[in-house]
This record gives sequence, structure tokens and C-alpha cells, in this order.
Amino acid sequence: MSTIFTKIIAGEIPSYKIYEDAHTYAFLDIHPETLGHVLVVPKVEVDKVYELKDSDWLDLWATVKKVALHMETILNQRILMKVIGTDVPHAHIHLMPFDPSWQHGRILELSDAEFQSIATKLAF
Amino acid sequence: MSTIFTKIIAGEIPSYKIYEDAHTYAFLDIHPETLGHVLVVPKVEVDKVYELKDSDWLDLWATVKKVALHMETILNQRILMKVIGTDVPHAHIHLMPFDPSWQHGRILELSDAEFQSIATKLAF
Repeated sequence: MSTIFTKIIAGEIPSYKIYEDAHTYAFLDIHPETLGHVLVVPKVEVDKVYELKDSDWLDLWATVKKVALHMETILNQRILMKVIGTDVPHAHIHLMPFDPSWQHGRILELSDAEFQSIATKLAF
Repeated sequence: MSTIFTKIIAGEIPSYKIYEDAHTYAFLDIHPETLGHVLVVPKVEVDKVYELKDSDWLDLWATVKKVALHMETILNQRILMKVIGTDVPHAHIHLMPFDPSWQHGRILELSDAEFQSIATKLAF
């Protein structure tokens, strides 16, 4: 069975898309810890990120760098990264604009309009 | 002035070294959140990790993959990653064995013998 992220990549589940190329997909985390919290995922399904084969691993980190620099330029905030991955068994990198009031694990409640607004800002 | 990590890499400040190659250095975090908490740093000094030039960026992530797989094999625990980096202005990747009792920001108190023991286990 496909993971929820594979369904998102396929467009079967809607997402606030930020970036896509042949190997990777980036979109807003709908459980954001800070405003502009993005997930970057490889299109190939793998549970633990470091189990990606070398070429997929490097493609993923190339996208992470591109998206992080883009987010920083637009938001003028330092970008943090986390790979926890004990929730969805499809590797994903969290990119989070640093906010001094950030509390690990506290989820922001945003309206669809607020998600749309930040997605429009961050989209490539 | 050199960062504390540059001094560690140069051997001016002691560390529990796990791995070293031409471009990267890995050692135990002396403020571990879980047992076996490792930092991977690029030898070049840069504040934000995504400011590394592409070749240094890829070298760093190649080491992260190698060290994470090595840690998982030895410890038989999933390895988490974090890049927060608001403390020391020299980019560093946290690699942390996942422990269900982990609490973000809670530091384990370990003796030198305990650090030595885990370093000996994890060293390449």
C-alpha cells in the first residue's frame, strides 16, 4: 500500500506544494511547529532516510539545500532541519523557519487561507 | 577566531572521536540527549549548514549517511537527525539514536568512562 506521502506526490491527496522535481517533492507540513514548516520527501518510498541509495540520497539533500536557501531568502529566518520519522514510514526532512518562541512538538493551528498564503510565498 | 569545533578538529580541545576524513569530523556530543548522540561537522567553518558550497555539502551528507548506518548497525536503534545550530556558529548535524524516553532538550549526565565506552563502540 502507498504511503500518505506517495498519495500526496501523486495528487490523490491535496497538499500545499512548494517544489517538485524528478526525485523529490516539498510541501507544507499540515501540523506545523513554526510558520512556514515544510517537508521534503524523496519520491521513492523508504522508511529511514539513510537507507536511500546514494543517488537518491544526494538528490534529496540537493533539494533540501535549494529549498532551505529559498525559504531563508523569502522569510529572512534561519532554517532548522529535523529528521525524526517515527510517524509516517516514508522518509521526510522537516525544514522549519527558526522562531524564538518555537516549542518542540507544539503545533500551530492555521486556517486554509493561512496555509495558502504561506504556500504562495514559498512556492518556486 | 576559530570556533570550538575547529579547535576540536585540530585536537586543541579533546573529543570522543568517532570518524574523520578529509572534509568531515564526527564525535560524541558532550551534552547528549540520548546515549550515543553524535555530532557531524564539516571541517570548513560555516554558520548555517546550507551555506556550504555544493561539494562540501555533499561531502558532509555522505559522512552523515555513513555514520548513521554505522550507528544503527552497532546500536540497533533508529537514528534521528537535527540541525538546529543556534548555539555554536559552525554547522553541525546531530545524530541521535532514537530512545522512546527521549525528551527534546533534556541532557543526559554521563561520566567520562560512559562517554569512553560509547565512543569505543561507535568509533570507525
